[in-house]
This record gives sequence, C-alpha cells and structure tokens, in this order.
Amino acid sequence: MNKIDPWQNALKQLASAAKILKLDPGVHEMLASPKKVLTVSLPVKMDDGRIKVFTGFRSQHNDFRGPFKGGIRYHPDVTIEEVKALSMWMTWKCSIVDVPFGGGKGGIICDPKRLSAGEKERLTRRYAYAISEIIGPGKDVPAPDVYTTGKEMAQIMDVYSIMHGQGEPGVITGKPLSIGGSQARNVATGLGVSYCVREAAKKLGLRLKGAKVVVQGYGNAATFAAEYIEKMGAKIIAVSDSKGSIVNTKGLDSKKVLEYKNKNGSVVGYPGSKKITTEQLLTTPCDILVPAALENQITPQIAKNVDCQDGCRGSKWPDNSRS
Amino acid sequence: MNKIDPWQNALKQLASAAKILKLDPGVHEMLASPKKVLTVSLPVKMDDGRIKVFTGFRSQHNDFRGPFKGGIRYHPDVTIEEVKALSMWMTWKCSIVDVPFGGGKGGIICDPKRLSAGEKERLTRRYAYAISEIIGPGKDVPAPDVYTTGKEMAQIMDVYSIMHGQGEPGVITGKPLSIGGSQARNVATGLGVSYCVREAAKKLGLRLKGAKVVVQGYGNAATFAAEYIEKMGAKIIAVSDSKGSIVNTKGLDSKKVLEYKNKNGSVVGYPGSKKITTEQLLTTPCDILVPAALENQITPQIAKNVDCQDGCRGSKWPDNSRS
Amino acid sequence: MNKIDPWQNALKQLASAAKILKLDPGVHEMLASPKKVLTVSLPVKMDDGRIKVFTGFRSQHNDFRGPFKGGIRYHPDVTIEEVKALSMWMTWKCSIVDVPFGGGKGGIICDPKRLSAGEKERLTRRYAYAISEIIGPGKDVPAPDVYTTGKEMAQIMDVYSIMHGQGEPGVITGKPLSIGGSQARNVATGLGVSYCVREAAKKLGLRLKGAKVVVQGYGNAATFAAEYIEKMGAKIIAVSDSKGSIVNTKGLDSKKVLEYKNKNGSVVGYPGSKKITTEQLLTTPCDILVPAALENQITPQIAKNVDCQDGCRGSKWPDNSRS
Amino acid sequence: MNKIDPWQNALKQLASAAKILKLDPGVHEMLASPKKVLTVSLPVKMDDGRIKVFTGFRSQHNDFRGPFKGGIRYHPDVTIEEVKALSMWMTWKCSIVDVPFGGGKGGIICDPKRLSAGEKERLTRRYAYAISEIIGPGKDVPAPDVYTTGKEMAQIMDVYSIMHGQGEPGVITGKPLSIGGSQARNVATGLGVSYCVREAAKKLGLRLKGAKVVVQGYGNAATFAAEYIEKMGAKIIAVSDSKGSIVNTKGLDSKKVLEYKNKNGSVVGYPGSKKITTEQLLTTPCDILVPAALENQITPQIAKNVDCQDGCRGSKWPDNSRS
Amino acid sequence: MNKIDPWQNALKQLASAAKILKLDPGVHEMLASPKKVLTVSLPVKMDDGRIKVFTGFRSQHNDFRGPFKGGIRYHPDVTIEEVKALSMWMTWKCSIVDVPFGGGKGGIICDPKRLSAGEKERLTRRYAYAISEIIGPGKDVPAPDVYTTGKEMAQIMDVYSIMHGQGEPGVITGKPLSIGGSQARNVATGLGVSYCVREAAKKLGLRLKGAKVVVQGYGNAATFAAEYIEKMGAKIIAVSDSKGSIVNTKGLDSKKVLEYKNKNGSVVGYPGSKKITTEQLLTTPCDILVPAALENQITPQIAKNVDCQDGCRGSKWPDNSRS
Amino acid sequence: MNKIDPWQNALKQLASAAKILKLDPGVHEMLASPKKVLTVSLPVKMDDGRIKVFTGFRSQHNDFRGPFKGGIRYHPDVTIEEVKALSMWMTWKCSIVDVPFGGGKGGIICDPKRLSAGEKERLTRRYAYAISEIIGPGKDVPAPDVYTTGKEMAQIMDVYSIMHGQGEPGVITGKPLSIGGSQARNVATGLGVSYCVREAAKKLGLRLKGAKVVVQGYGNAATFAAEYIEKMGAKIIAVSDSKGSIVNTKGLDSKKVLEYKNKNGSVVGYPGSKKITTEQLLTTPCDILVPAALENQITPQIAKNVDCQDGCRGSKWPDNSRS
Repeated sequence: MNKIDPWQNALKQLASAAKILKLDPGVHEMLASPKKVLTVSLPVKMDDGRIKVFTGFRSQHNDFRGPFKGGIRYHPDVTIEEVKALSMWMTWKCSIVDVPFGGGKGGIICDPKRLSAGEKERLTRRYAYAISEIIGPGKDVPAPDVYTTGKEMAQIMDVYSIMHGQGEPGVITGKPLSIGGSQARNVATGLGVSYCVREAAKKLGLRLKGAKVVVQGYGNAATFAAEYIEKMGAKIIAVSDSKGSIVNTKGLDSKKVLEYKNKNGSVVGYPGSKKITTEQLLTTPCDILVPAALENQITPQIAKNVDCQDGCRGSKWPDNSRS
Repeated sequence: MNKIDPWQNALKQLASAAKILKLDPGVHEMLASPKKVLTVSLPVKMDDGRIKVFTGFRSQHNDFRGPFKGGIRYHPDVTIEEVKALSMWMTWKCSIVDVPFGGGKGGIICDPKRLSAGEKERLTRRYAYAISEIIGPGKDVPAPDVYTTGKEMAQIMDVYSIMHGQGEPGVITGKPLSIGGSQARNVATGLGVSYCVREAAKKLGLRLKGAKVVVQGYGNAATFAAEYIEKMGAKIIAVSDSKGSIVNTKGLDSKKVLEYKNKNGSVVGYPGSKKITTEQLLTTPCDILVPAALENQITPQIAKNVDCQDGCRGSKWPDNSRS
Repeated sequence: MNKIDPWQNALKQLASAAKILKLDPGVHEMLASPKKVLTVSLPVKMDDGRIKVFTGFRSQHNDFRGPFKGGIRYHPDVTIEEVKALSMWMTWKCSIVDVPFGGGKGGIICDPKRLSAGEKERLTRRYAYAISEIIGPGKDVPAPDVYTTGKEMAQIMDVYSIMHGQGEPGVITGKPLSIGGSQARNVATGLGVSYCVREAAKKLGLRLKGAKVVVQGYGNAATFAAEYIEKMGAKIIAVSDSKGSIVNTKGLDSKKVLEYKNKNGSVVGYPGSKKITTEQLLTTPCDILVPAALENQITPQIAKNVDCQDGCRGSKWPDNSRS
Repeated sequence: MNKIDPWQNALKQLASAAKILKLDPGVHEMLASPKKVLTVSLPVKMDDGRIKVFTGFRSQHNDFRGPFKGGIRYHPDVTIEEVKALSMWMTWKCSIVDVPFGGGKGGIICDPKRLSAGEKERLTRRYAYAISEIIGPGKDVPAPDVYTTGKEMAQIMDVYSIMHGQGEPGVITGKPLSIGGSQARNVATGLGVSYCVREAAKKLGLRLKGAKVVVQGYGNAATFAAEYIEKMGAKIIAVSDSKGSIVNTKGLDSKKVLEYKNKNGSVVGYPGSKKITTEQLLTTPCDILVPAALENQITPQIAKNVDCQDGCRGSKWPDNSRS
Repeated sequence: MNKIDPWQNALKQLASAAKILKLDPGVHEMLASPKKVLTVSLPVKMDDGRIKVFTGFRSQHNDFRGPFKGGIRYHPDVTIEEVKALSMWMTWKCSIVDVPFGGGKGGIICDPKRLSAGEKERLTRRYAYAISEIIGPGKDVPAPDVYTTGKEMAQIMDVYSIMHGQGEPGVITGKPLSIGGSQARNVATGLGVSYCVREAAKKLGLRLKGAKVVVQGYGNAATFAAEYIEKMGAKIIAVSDSKGSIVNTKGLDSKKVLEYKNKNGSVVGYPGSKKITTEQLLTTPCDILVPAALENQITPQIAKNVDCQDGCRGSKWPDNSRS
Repeated sequence: MNKIDPWQNALKQLASAAKILKLDPGVHEMLASPKKVLTVSLPVKMDDGRIKVFTGFRSQHNDFRGPFKGGIRYHPDVTIEEVKALSMWMTWKCSIVDVPFGGGKGGIICDPKRLSAGEKERLTRRYAYAISEIIGPGKDVPAPDVYTTGKEMAQIMDVYSIMHGQGEPGVITGKPLSIGGSQARNVATGLGVSYCVREAAKKLGLRLKGAKVVVQGYGNAATFAAEYIEKMGAKIIAVSDSKGSIVNTKGLDSKKVLEYKNKNGSVVGYPGSKKITTEQLLTTPCDILVPAALENQITPQIAKNVDCQDGCRGSKWPDNSRS
C-alpha cells in the first residue's frame, strides 16, 4: 500500500472547498501555501557519548485569525508533508470552533520509545531553542501531540522562559497543572470527540442509547472519548492499540479495558474479547466509528467496506456536491 | 542532461574532506545538516491586481565561527537543495579566508526579468519581513547574489529597520554607499578572482604575461575579474553571457566588450569575435578558465574536454585521490 | 461665525473647575498642558501616482491614572487645538467613569470621503507607523472616532503587530470581533448616552414615557442612542445628518429612519418628516436634546434659543457658580 | 522690527532650490514637512517648591540619509517654527558635508540664565525622559546648541541609559570627554567656520593675510573661529556678545578679548576698543563677516548696508538664477 | 538575650522537614540556598544636603513553582540573614496555599520613622532602580511588608514603568486601588489569620464563641485579624504595639482600641486596660495567641511559659516525629 | 597566621586616600560601598549524578566612568569580601590608566583542579546564566582571572548570546581569538608589569641592565613579565609556583624555566636552582620584586624583611604622608 501524501490530500480538500466557495484564486493560492515552514537540525549527545543529529519541523500555515496553534509530534514517520498538512488542518479546526488562533504544527523524526528520558529531554530542549525565534504567546503556541506530553511542554516553556529572562507560561498549552496548565486539558480531546458524536447523532436522528461504537486507537484521546460516549448510553464494541485490535459485540467496559492495558501493555488479550486485524476493526458493523489513531487510516480500500450506520446512506448530511 | 543536485554534490565533497580529516562522525553529521532552513510563502499583489504567491528560502548552515553570511538569489531555477548547498559552501569559504562568519544563503523562485520594479520591490519587502526573525547583525547578514543588487539590499535593510524601530545598517552587506555600504564592494568578487588566479599561477609556475583566459559569464564578477586579470598581463580570449559565447584568440579588450554589452544587451556580435556554443567556450584551449556564471556548469562530460593549461597535467596540486 | 477654538474652550472649563476646587497652581498648570503632542507628516502614494503629504496628530493629555485612551478622527477640520482639547476631555471622561485610563486623542487632516479604500488604508498604515513609538497596550490605546471604524483599527493593530513581531491586540480598542474586539463595542457609545439620559431624567424628575427627544447627528452613536432611548418610552421627534435635519413632532421610528438613511444616503426625505435647518433642529421644543455630531455645535447664539425641558429652568442641577 | 518666521524662511529657501532642481512636487512636499514634531510639557519643581511647566520641542525633519542629528537649544525665544526650520537646515548641512545623518533639532522655551543648576538639571532630565521614545543611536542623536553644554548632554545620556538598562553613549554627541566625548568636539564648530573662510577666500581670490574680520557673537563657536582665522593671518577688528559690540580697526587679539570677557562678563570695555551697536557691527567695513550669534540677524534692512569685501560684487560665486 | 539568626533557624526547619520527607540530598542542598541574593548600596540625598548610603537586599529563594513573591521591609534591624530566611519561608507559604509563585523577600536597613517623606521616596526609588534588573511580572513581584505601604509600591511601580517605557502594574502587588491594586488587599493578611484560627479551632475542637485571644502587635495585619476573629465570637483580651502591651481579661473592643491608638499613638492607656510587659503578654493565659509583630518573638524561654489552650497539650495535631 | 580581610584592607586604603584628597564624606561613603553585590547558588550535576550547589559572586563597585570591568576567579578561597575588594581595586586601576570602565569582579568558591571538564563547563554556564541580568556590553564586561581562561569566557559568551538571540562578543573580554578575542590579550598582563618596572626604574634611577629580579608565581602573568623584563636586560634570580620556590643568584633563563615547568609540573627542581620557602623568596635580596601570585602575600611580617633595592630607602617616591 502506497503511503498517502497528507499534504497532497490536504491540498485536494482545500481545492474542493475552494470550488464550492468560488474562492478568489489569489486567496486560494495563499491558503495552499503555509506561511512559514522551518526545518531544523538537532544535534543531541546520546547516552553513549555519540552525537546524533535529528531533524525537526515547525509549519505555520495561516495566522489571519490569530497566533498559530498546533501540537508537536515525535514519531519515526514524521515528514515535512505531514507537518504541513496537519498545520493546514489546524487552521480549519480553529476557524470552525471560532477560537482566535491560526494553524501550526511541529514534529521531530525520532522514535521516542527508543530514547532514554535524558536523550528525549535534550532533544526537546534543542528543538525548543531551534524554533524559539518563531514561537511565542502572540506568535505561535505549540501543544502536545503524538508521543509528547506535559513533560515536554514544561521543557519547552523552560527553554523559552530562560531565553526571555522571565517565566513565559503563555508560550505553550498542555503544560502540567503545577506550572499553569488548564484543568480540563487532560480530557479535552476525548470529551470533544464525545460532543461531536452527540451532535452528529442529533442531526442524524441516531439514538445513542445502545448504539454500537468502534474506537481505533486507545491512547489519551480515545480512552476519554470511549468513557464519555459510554456515559451517553452507547456501547463500545471494539478498540485497538499499536499491538492489535479487539472486539466483543456484547460490549467492552471502557474503564476496565484501560486498566487491563495499563497493566498488560496492550488491550489485546482483554478477557472476553477476540483479536482482529486493523482492517477488520475498521469494517466491523457499528453505529459509530471513532478513528483516534494517526491520520490517513481509512484508505479508499477500507472506506468502501466501512459498515457504519446504515441509516447514513440516506442521511441528512448536506450534499454539497450538487451546489 | 539531468540536473545535478547541488546538495548531494556538496554532501559528497564534505564526505571526501571528512575522510581525509578523519572527522568525528558526530561532527560530520552536524556539518552535513544545515542548522536551519526556512521556507516562506510570499504573497505579492501583482501590477494587474492579482495575488501571486512566491516561494523563498533562507538556509543557515553553520554559525560556529560567527553569524551566518551569504547572498540572496532571485532565479526561476532556485531550489531548496541549491540554497542548502550554497549555504554549506559559504561556511567553507568564510573559514578559508578566516573571517568570523558562518555560512548562509537565501533565494526566491522567481523570474526577476519578468517582474516590474514595483512587483520586485513588493516581493523583496515581503521576503525581508518573512525572514526577519532569523536575520540580524549578530545572527545572519545577507548580501546580494544572482539578480539582486544594492537596491534590494536597501529595501531589506529598510524593512528590518522599521521592524526594529531604528536604522539597522548592520543587517545587510552590499548596500548602496549612500546608506553605509562599503566602498570596494562593487569590485570585490572580481578582484578576489584575480587574486586567486595570481596565487594559483605562482603555485603552478604559470607566467601570466600573455596567458590565454576564458571567462564564462560576463556579469559583475566576471567583468571585474577580466579587467584585473588583463591588468596582470593576461589576454582574455573568450567570454559569454546568457545570450551566447564569443571567442577571439587574438584577445578581447575587456572594457570594450563591456561597453558593447551595455549598449547591445549582449557580448554576442562584438566586432572581431566569433559566436560559439557554451560547450565550445568551456573547452576552448586556454591557460586559465574562469567559470563565473551559475554553479554546476562544468559537467563530467565537459570536464573531460576542458583544455586548460597542459602543464597542469603534471601539476603541483596535491592529489587527494590516492590518500 | 468665528470658529470656536476648542483648546481655549477646554482651558476655560479647566480654569473654572480649578477655581471651584481651589486647585494648586502647579497642578493646574500641569493639567493645562498635554504631556505630549506629536505632529506627523504622512506621505501617501495616491491612486494617480502622485505623493500627497497629510498631517496627523496624537495628543496625550494626562496619564496619572493609566495609559492614554482616546479615538482617532479623520476630518478636514481636524486641528491641533481640537485634538488637544479632545485629549483633555478624555482625561475628565475616564476619571468620571473611574476607568484606569488617561486622556489621549488623535486625528488626521483629510477628507475621508474623497479617499479611495486603498488611499485610506495607506494613510492609516502610515499614521500607525508614525505614532508607533508613543502608543502601546501600557502607554496609549487608541480607538475609533469620527470617520474611522474597526477596519482602520485592524490596520493600526496590524502595523503595530508587525513592528513588535507578534500579534498585539491590546494596542487598540474598537477592533473587529474576529480579531479580538469587544462584543458590546458597537452599541457602547449610544447605549451610554441612553444611560445618561435615564439617570438625568431620574435626577430631574422627568418622565421618560412620552418625552420628546431631538437627536443631532445620525451616525453610530446617535442611532443606538435613539434606539435605546426609544425603548425607555421616549419619542424621537427630530434627527439630522450631514445632508440636513428632519422633524416630525408625532414621532419618528428610529429603526425605520436608519433603514431609510442606509438606503437613501440621508435621513432627509424620510416619509412624514419635514426638512428643517440645523439651527431649527437644535431649537426645536423638546424634553431631551442629544447633540451627537461634532463638538462646538451649540454656540452661545443657539444656546440662548434651545427650548428643552422647561422644567430645567427651575432645575435641581447643583449650581456651582455660587460656590 | 517684526520677528522673521524662520520656518517660512526655510520653506522659501527650499522652494527656490526646488525650482532650480525641478524637484518632483511630491518630494518637495515631503521635504517641506518635518517627519515628526514632538511638543512636550515639562513640569519642574523649582527651588522655591512651586511646580513650573516648561514647553520643549524636538523636530525630526528628514532621515532618508541616516538618523536625525541636531542640537538642543535653551532660550526664551525658542518657538516651534524656529525648531522646525533649524531641523530642516540640519538636513541640508548633513547632506552637504556628506555625513550619514538627517536633520533634527530640539529646544526648550526657558531662560537658562535664570535657572539654578538644580532647576536646569531637573528640566534637562525631564526633557530627556519626554523625548526618550523618539531618540536613540540609530534614530536621532542630539547635541549641544545655544546655552546647552556637555553637562546637559551627560544628563540626557544618563536618563536614556537608565531607561535602557545600560550605558548608551551613542545617544548623544558633544558629551564630556570622560564619558566618551570626541576630543576635537570643543573646537569643531569654530574650526569648521575657519575652514569655510579659507575655502571661500581661495574661491574669491581673497588674501587672508591682513584681511579684516568682523565676528558677531563671542561664544564657543565664535571664539575658536576667531582664533583659527587669526592664525591664518587675518585680523579680527570687531566682535560682540549679548552685552554689546566693540570695534578696533587696528585689530583685536582674540585670546586677550576672550580672557577679558571671562574676567569681566563681556567683551564690552576691552582696552583700546570702542563700543558700537549691533547694526554698526554688522555694517562695519570688512573683508569677512562671521555671523556667529543666533540666526536671522542679518535682516533685509541690514543686508543692504553690509560692507564686506567689495570684490564680492563682481564675485566668482556661481549664479544659479540663470541656470 | 542573643539575637536568633533567622537564617540558621530556617535551615534547621528545612533540615527537619527534609528528614521526614527523606529528601534527596541534592534537592535539599538546592532548597537550602537562595537562588540569588542581591545586596545594593543606595546613596540618598538627605534633606540637609548630605549624601547617605543605605544598604538594601533582595533575596530570591526558589522559583520552581512560579515567579518569586514577597514583601519589602524597611527596618533598622534588617539583615541579609533575615531577608534570606523570610524568602525561604515565602517559598513554603506559596506552596502550602498552592499559588503559582516562589519565595522572595527584600529589605532596606533604615529607620523609616526618622526619614522625611522626601527622603523615604528617594530611598524607595533608588532601591527600585537598583533591583530593577531582577524583578518583573514574570520574574519577581514584590509587595508591602513591615513599614512599607501602597505608597512605596506605587513609587516602585513608577520607577519600573519608566524604565520599561510603559505602565507595568504587574511588577508589584499591594499598590493603591487607583492604579490597579486589588480590592481586598488591605484586609487580606488579617482575614487570612482569622481563617487559620477558624480552621485550627475546627481541627482542635475548640469553640470560638467566647474563646480568649491575645494578639501581639496592632498594625495592619493584627487589627484586621482581631476584628475578624472577634466577629467569629471570640474575645480579644490583650494586644500590644511598639510602645507597650495591654490586657483586659473581660475583653477589648478591637475597633475602639484601634480608634484609641490612631488618636493617641499607642494602644497603651486604653481605658479599662492594664499595661503589661511583652513577656507577660505572650504568656497571658488564653485560648488563642496571635503573634503579629516581627518574627522570632517567641524565644525558647517564652515558649516554655506560653499558656495557651490547655487542650492542645493532648492535641490532635499530627505528630510527624513518629512517622 | 590570620587571614587578612581584603575588603577591610581596601576600605583602609580608600580612607587614607580620602584623607589626602579631603574627599567629601558622601562621596567617600559611596566609594566605600559596592553598587551591587550579587550572590548566586549554582546547582551542578556532577559526573557521579549527584547535585552539588556552588556559590558564586559578582561585585559591581562603581560605574561612574563606564561599564563595570573585572575578572572571574575560580578558587576554594574565594570570599565575598575578596570579590568586593578586587572590584574596588578594579575601579582604581581603570581610572589610573584612564580607560572608560568601572570596577567589577566575580568569583566562584570551588576547586577547579578537582572538577572534570564537563563539571567545570556546567558550573561556568550556570554562573553565566545566574549573573546574566547584570552583565552586558554596556553594563559589566567580565574577563578571565585566577583559574579561568578563554575557554570559560567562550562559554559565558555562548550562554549570554543564546539568551539574547544573537552573537554577543562584547559581553566578555579574554575570549579566544577565533570568536573575536584581542590578539595581544595573552601577553597583556605580563607586558604591562614590565612597563611598570621600566617606568618605576626610570623614576628611581635604577639601571635595569643586570638588575636582579624576584618573581612570585609563575603563571600566565608572571612568565610574560619575566620574559619582557629579561629582554630589558634584567636578570631573573628567583621564581615560584604553588609547588615551591627556587633561586639561582646567577640568573634563571625565563623561557627554559617555563619549558621545565610545562614538562615537570613545577619550577621546583629546575637544574642549577635551589629550593627555598615562600618567605625566603619574598625576602631574597634583589632590585625588583614582582608579586604575581594571589593578593595579600606580603604580610606586615614579611614586609619588614623584604630586601629589595636599598636605594629605595632614600627613594624619590613622593611622600604623600606629609602633604
């Protein structure tokens, strides 16, 4: 399977929106170009004494509506195209929820699972220093993303604060509560997913009580999404993590699955569940499918076989293709 | 003919130098990665009212020895690889002449000949604003390069000065004399070429008096190089510009060729000269060949046929290939 | 009719207040002198290619209580004396409502109705740049005034933000909601007028129900004032704009008058109304007179003939002249 | 005698130069408007405890060629028009001697002779603070002028340095040697006058040996001018100060006159000299007339009677009026 | 009686806490060392014209949890050890109430009662300037302490604001309401004491109704503490100030005592009260003892004789020594 | 032997100078108090993983004549009193040689010989960060001193440059040539000593040719001093280092002694020399005694027995005690 280039994907989405909006070509061209993309080399002294040079990015797509905003991702598959695409999507996301921010995104090509705590901290601090000129409370405010947590945010805030000679909590979100983080930050992404599910269900006339839910991924966002959707009366029937996917059409207890994963390192093997493939997970018949792993999981191939909410076929979603 | 990737070229040169120096692998890896490469989108209102978005770059290779230093190039063939390679070469150049600067380079993908004065100024000012965070007297000091002149430098200085609330002449070199430029700036590159020729001739035991010289290109650097080499007693026998190449083995008067070019738009047609192809120019038998156009002109193919200074065959240059 | 010098007017008002307060002469002298008055020349490239130089001002009267605060006015009749007077009045206004701001005011001598959108933007941006050193969130925070709107405020914020390298929404108030403006900003001035009317009515024992109201001017402040006063039960009987004045003693529907003006460019001609002169408007018998055009409209001559609220003659206002 | 408005004077001079140069009207208009004029109120606690508010100005005429440059004057006759005119003249002066500075000027309306040292220092420091936003090494660099000396410059530098958290000697010229002043500063103005005399004499074919010189004023500039012109062989025959003028056609010894003035408070009464009026001084027959007091001394009335260098009548000065 | 070194005291307290916490020795060593201690010399022109040099301190103990925070004290007994100890205690206090601040403290060795208003202001402004580099809204935010009030805070804010070119209310707390102070600031310390009393009483099972309270000191903190504790039903039976101590076991009316002190300069002599020594005050039998004067009042000697709340002997306080 | 308190020493010297100068008591008091003394705690992660907290100082004595200037010393015997004294002496030294700098000094209590390169670097960088607020090109410019070299200066410059976002070579002197150090820096102290010797000899009428010289210490300053004094014709007869002292009245070859020391780790054992005690070294009969180790070596006891230049007893030195 060819890797889908997320940036080409994003440009296509923009192009189809521009067509619908009859967008001025100059404005379209501006929105199709991130304002700035910074590529940085990050030499890090590894625990064995060798210097290894990592590559990091920060893409700032658009700040017409306010400072750039978007997470920083540590992953071996990070590419400049992915970071650019994610920064563009952040522009749309911030606009849709009408917060005064624009779209940005950052990433470092690395395998965080193979870095010691010291190596990870030195890499993070080097990255913070390398991008320090283009971030700031009124310029670009990063946040955690895949494999980064409040710990890395605290380190970035510390580097930036040292360089500005005073505490600068406004340079970052998702930082620990003890240094000024927001109280609901932890559950925010998952809670937001549950709100989307609730609103979509209203629009579609779908009863949440007893609705069957498949969740891909079981990280921070997914576990809270599962918990809140469950509280709305729905039933989680399948989940997955990087080790594999499980299903139990009678329902999985979201909290217990989490406890099992925390103890055993994976959801796989959860009592009463059956192990399935990722493709099976994504095509399990259900009412609600929550893709909460990395982007670009639902390939055209899989999309054809997704078996989610028959009712959608004759759905009430506005059909823009005719307009 | 495939375009040679200048960055791969530069990395190969670095690798062979590293091998000779038995360079520490970590240091090699750091030198093989530009510290920062910034890509910027530059929306410009064209004279016809449309917005066009140009792409610009600034590569900062290495600043161990002092602020980054290097020109800004406007050309349709500018690529991120070329800018990165040129910035690496600037690091070596600054080190060799032992000035306290590191290597940087910038460029904009554009055809400056098709831009009106107003469009070019708006493009330049937008670029200056876009890279303003990463340049400065103690950080990175740009200069003119292909198709940029003191005029563009003045505009960059103006934007930077406005953003810093005071005159900042130190942000740029190659600016007009009236706002603080250096007096010898105009002739510096060509004069430097003539010094290299003089020193190389000494080393090779080549008599400059009557030596035959071929100059590729006839822009600012080339014309002054030709003038100063001529003053050392050598004879210019062939020159070229973007319109074509000319040869006269009896010698060309460098000043008169310049006057002819200024009047007629090209050296082609200069009385007493014969028009030849670029390949013929570069393979014309001569004592000294001065490539003063863009980089990567002497392809492997041409290199085999260069017919410059028979004596070099048994030359005193150190032969690194055996080490 | 001689133009009344607003600055002399303001000094006289201060002097009479100082007399009542038995103000220390040194303090009186300080309050009688704006702390700073900046006069700037603003060269603007007009659409026809010519450069025209406009003159602008920013007067900062007093910042004992907090940063200077006050609007920016575009009008052919702007003078340095007017701007100084308005900045002094802003000091009193901020003090009276006890907000932590001092008094400032700005203006440009120009006829905004004769400027194209591009010319107006270039003028505004030039002005913002020219006064940028003396404004800022903790120094002086301008706002819209006669013939300036959120659009100009956004342009001023943009220039200031560029010069400070980050978004600086705090430098200006009255900016559009989308870049951080306040939600009630639009109606604030007019709503405030209605509160004054309500409080004055209470003090005077005037019943608002059915009270007759004359409003001079029908711009942003006046229309909202009219709407809110109408909601309190009073009856708008006469209004005006720069094209003329109208009266209908049976009452004018404030919203419909506004719709008529928006459609026809003036209140004049509104069905059922009679056109009158400005002097007639200001001397129309009424209970409440709202002067919401430029200052200095009620000349001594007119003042004698104002026929507003007979009851006031024996009014409960404190008579300071005897104290 | 009506006071001549120096600003109208300066505008007329500019207009006649513009006519000769066929200057673009837009550029003419820009040069006819100081870029910024700042008026400041300066409350000073006087030695008797009262607060007195002084008015000061800083006019910044033009900075196309570099930071504004020009003195600060303390005099009861300072007006905004004078300061504006002097700032324009500084633009021309800096251009003519081709130094990379533009024209600025400042002044405070005060009688420095009636201020105690403490009052003068408090006034100076308040002024420095009031104009601090618009001066600086790369923006505007003031210097001493009428009734200000190195002492005031040191105080201005101190205030500016405190506000910038570090020593800022570049903000001012004319400061004392001990804090970084230039060694020739003291004699510079007078020495420059003598150079002008020498060059003018060459051009006119005037023999300096024995030439008769009248000097109006006998302050810092005048005394050094007299000394250096004397060294060139000329003879000082008349000088003046604020107390009166003296003449001795046989010659005055410039150094002894200075010693007499230092001891007695005026040149008047110098042994062997005769007291005359200002008008007589300026119309004393001589070869060279050096007006080194305030500007606008040679009124049209006096100009008619100036009796300096008959030879000038058929002079070699270029007559631009015909070109 | 030997003066107890507060810093050694503080170190002992830290050591015993560290032992209980089994604190890492490196962390213990860091907490045992203030991050920075700045000693400044403060030359002040006294009213008699002489220069006197005062010594001031600012100790910044720890900012792991946020900017340093702590008062500025004017007292003849200020020592560097005391200031260091107080800054360490501020770290604990801010941690315990979980506000995002670290511990700081400042002081000047001076007898504020012998300084004129002018001398005190000049001293304060000099101190503000001297410590200006290390304070700021995101660095260190001072506040009033012994013998400093909102007035001094306003002067410190003014100096800091001048040095930063704009109003900087965030640099200080405890400033007057008119320039941005907090409304409850005045009563905060005393109110907080009353909350502690209330919570401690709950924990100890002590009925506040009728409980006997001794308050050492009768300054700002003590008077409000007394007032609020009285409102909780308790009875103030003894208070003191720098002139002496008084007791009336039947109860003292806190407000009337304050009025008496304001009128007569001391609580001593309050009708119905008996004068006692400090030692007697601190050992008066009572339920609640509020030490609200300077620190280190309850010496080991006095501690033995404190006669407060017999019930405490078998108290419910957790006994950490056994854990 | 009691350690002499250098600060009390320095105060006594100042007091005797003040007496001679009849210095104003206020000015004397100001000069007797360093403007600022900053004490910093420096937690350093040692190679064994433990955190150790070092204490550092920076004393800024007086900056009336320009930015503070003075070295940074690493030594176990560093005390706040020593650093204060050295900073005062720097004020006098800068004044005497009339350079526009004031006096500063810094130090860290540590044994640099027991620190690994990594520990020393981490300590240096932490110290640089800790004092960064109070140093800078226009504020305080440190330099190397006992046991610090260009390497530490480069690290301090690096930390400061990172914190200011650009290269800041002006923050430090004594840095390596490759990053902007001064070429003569290496020999400067020793060369200066030789100039003092030369000038003193002139004044005393002492013939340098053949004069006997004793040098205490044989570090950077001493070896160059010995070399240059030798070149003036004098004869080095005794030198010392931390391992011991040697003497050879027939003369020691300064270069060979240095070579011997570089090879063997000490001057002790140099062929043809005899080992003596420090006291013997300082009392060796000679014409010139150069104390080039730490300060306070010539105790009153030793001073009595110094046997240097009999001729001095009836010397030409001005005897200020009588004036």
